[in-house]
Amino acid sequence: MTDTHTHTHTPPRLSLSLLGLGDMGTALARTWLAAGHSLTVWNRTPAKAGALAAEGASVAASAADAVAASALVVVCLLDDTSVGAALEGIDLTGKDLVNLTTGTPAEARARAAWAEERGARYLDGGIMATPTMIGAPGTGGYVFYSGSRALFDSRRALLEVPAGSRFVGENPGHAALHDVALLSAMWGMFAGVSHAYALIEGEDIAPKDLAPLLSEWLGAMGFFVGNAAERLTSRDFTSGVVSNLAMQVAGSGTMLRTAEEQGVSAELVTPYVDLLRRRLAADPAAHGGEDTTGAVLLLKR
Amino acid sequence: MTDTHTHTHTPPRLSLSLLGLGDMGTALARTWLAAGHSLTVWNRTPAKAGALAAEGASVAASAADAVAASALVVVCLLDDTSVGAALEGIDLTGKDLVNLTTGTPAEARARAAWAEERGARYLDGGIMATPTMIGAPGTGGYVFYSGSRALFDSRRALLEVPAGSRFVGENPGHAALHDVALLSAMWGMFAGVSHAYALIEGEDIAPKDLAPLLSEWLGAMGFFVGNAAERLTSRDFTSGVVSNLAMQVAGSGTMLRTAEEQGVSAELVTPYVDLLRRRLAADPAAHGGEDTTGAVLLLKR
Repeated sequence: MTDTHTHTHTPPRLSLSLLGLGDMGTALARTWLAAGHSLTVWNRTPAKAGALAAEGASVAASAADAVAASALVVVCLLDDTSVGAALEGIDLTGKDLVNLTTGTPAEARARAAWAEERGARYLDGGIMATPTMIGAPGTGGYVFYSGSRALFDSRRALLEVPAGSRFVGENPGHAALHDVALLSAMWGMFAGVSHAYALIEGEDIAPKDLAPLLSEWLGAMGFFVGNAAERLTSRDFTSGVVSNLAMQVAGSGTMLRTAEEQGVSAELVTPYVDLLRRRLAADPAAHGGEDTTGAVLLLKR
Repeated sequence: MTDTHTHTHTPPRLSLSLLGLGDMGTALARTWLAAGHSLTVWNRTPAKAGALAAEGASVAASAADAVAASALVVVCLLDDTSVGAALEGIDLTGKDLVNLTTGTPAEARARAAWAEERGARYLDGGIMATPTMIGAPGTGGYVFYSGSRALFDSRRALLEVPAGSRFVGENPGHAALHDVALLSAMWGMFAGVSHAYALIEGEDIAPKDLAPLLSEWLGAMGFFVGNAAERLTSRDFTSGVVSNLAMQVAGSGTMLRTAEEQGVSAELVTPYVDLLRRRLAADPAAHGGEDTTGAVLLLKR
């Protein structure tokens, strides 16, 4: 009984191969080793595999050897070109290829077709975490996956060792698209916050005093995310608008003049103001009563 | 005893005058009337005062009459030019002037000096709320105040009827500066979120499915606000960096190429990428290991 009981709490020792030992690849590798799995690693520069060998990894002499060692092959390289170069001419028949290399949706779709032509199942991943968040569940990092649902379902236990997962569909490009969408939104927020801090440079206002006000305000204004989703689905940009486009555009002048007064370049905030102005100018009567979400349509060519 | 007890729970009936009955002024007025205070109103276009008269407001025939009626005078007009025009030639001796009109920090400082020359105490306000959030404490709206601390302290009970308050210093420009800083950060977030939604236009991804992922991610990345404040105070942009400027700049290409692939204008995200690239290019050895906060310094001329 005791043996059986213990056994049910010991995950089976599984095998996989990992190509690419940059900061992210190394962080991933350590979680699989720490969980007791059998890991074969390969890196273009062999030195990086040394520390992992001491932690129990098998070091393959070539990418082909690493691929041959396991049915599950994870790649985490510099870019898509590196993936093509590393796997060139290698037999992928019957392999499960999981590509965690950063790339665009089109690169992911092309790589999926390429892998399937060579007899592999393909899953693309977009890592929403820094290397320090890998193997640290409390930090909130996770990986978007898209492509072969069958591959994801059968390899999920191993894939979720480094971080949680979100499967976002069979279109292999959608993991990368979700990844880039979230990063773009984040960079927008960083840009706005950077402009805010630039405005108080040289003033008798401590950044640490502004920070909690900024955080609270951005949290309160986060309602925009869900509201915009509803409007983009219904294409109703005017119902229930509390601060309409005409008012926002009228008020934007104060924001730009304040930047000028403070000696701060408005380069980070001007493009959104310009976009709202274009939306309004296109048809003031139709768009003046909208919220700002309608401007999204101007971005799509 | 009963009378005394009741009396302590009935706020004293106070008096004030309000100039400006746009959407915001009207919302403010209603809260003071609902709380039982004595309110005199004036608006350039008299019609707007009609409904408020029915709710108990005294309607002044001129701005001068409105100012003469109360020691506390609140103005909420279109812009600073409207404030100057409305108050031109009116005796402000001994008045407490609270200016809730949207404007720049320099306009607030000039208006403070102008009011003090005319014998008034001056307090500037930046309203962090839409009219629908006025008189609705649960919505999180509030007003930044700066200028005369004595005025703020003595009038606080009345000022906090429409919404909560945050006094941010005796520099009369600082309420407007805080206001614009928070709005700028918000517009940056809106811009990033707008770009994210544009990326999935035409894809088989529902905006409502992306929304919770965006909200969660922006919440997790909100650590940037406090982290940036610490770095801008210490001017240490390199300690404890998990994703450095060189890596961010290298990764930015994927974001821009994805926009191109998806047929989405990158106008909202390009300026921040360009700013990070300039920071890195200025001194790759010194700045490559920084986080992205150092780029704030490039915005300040």
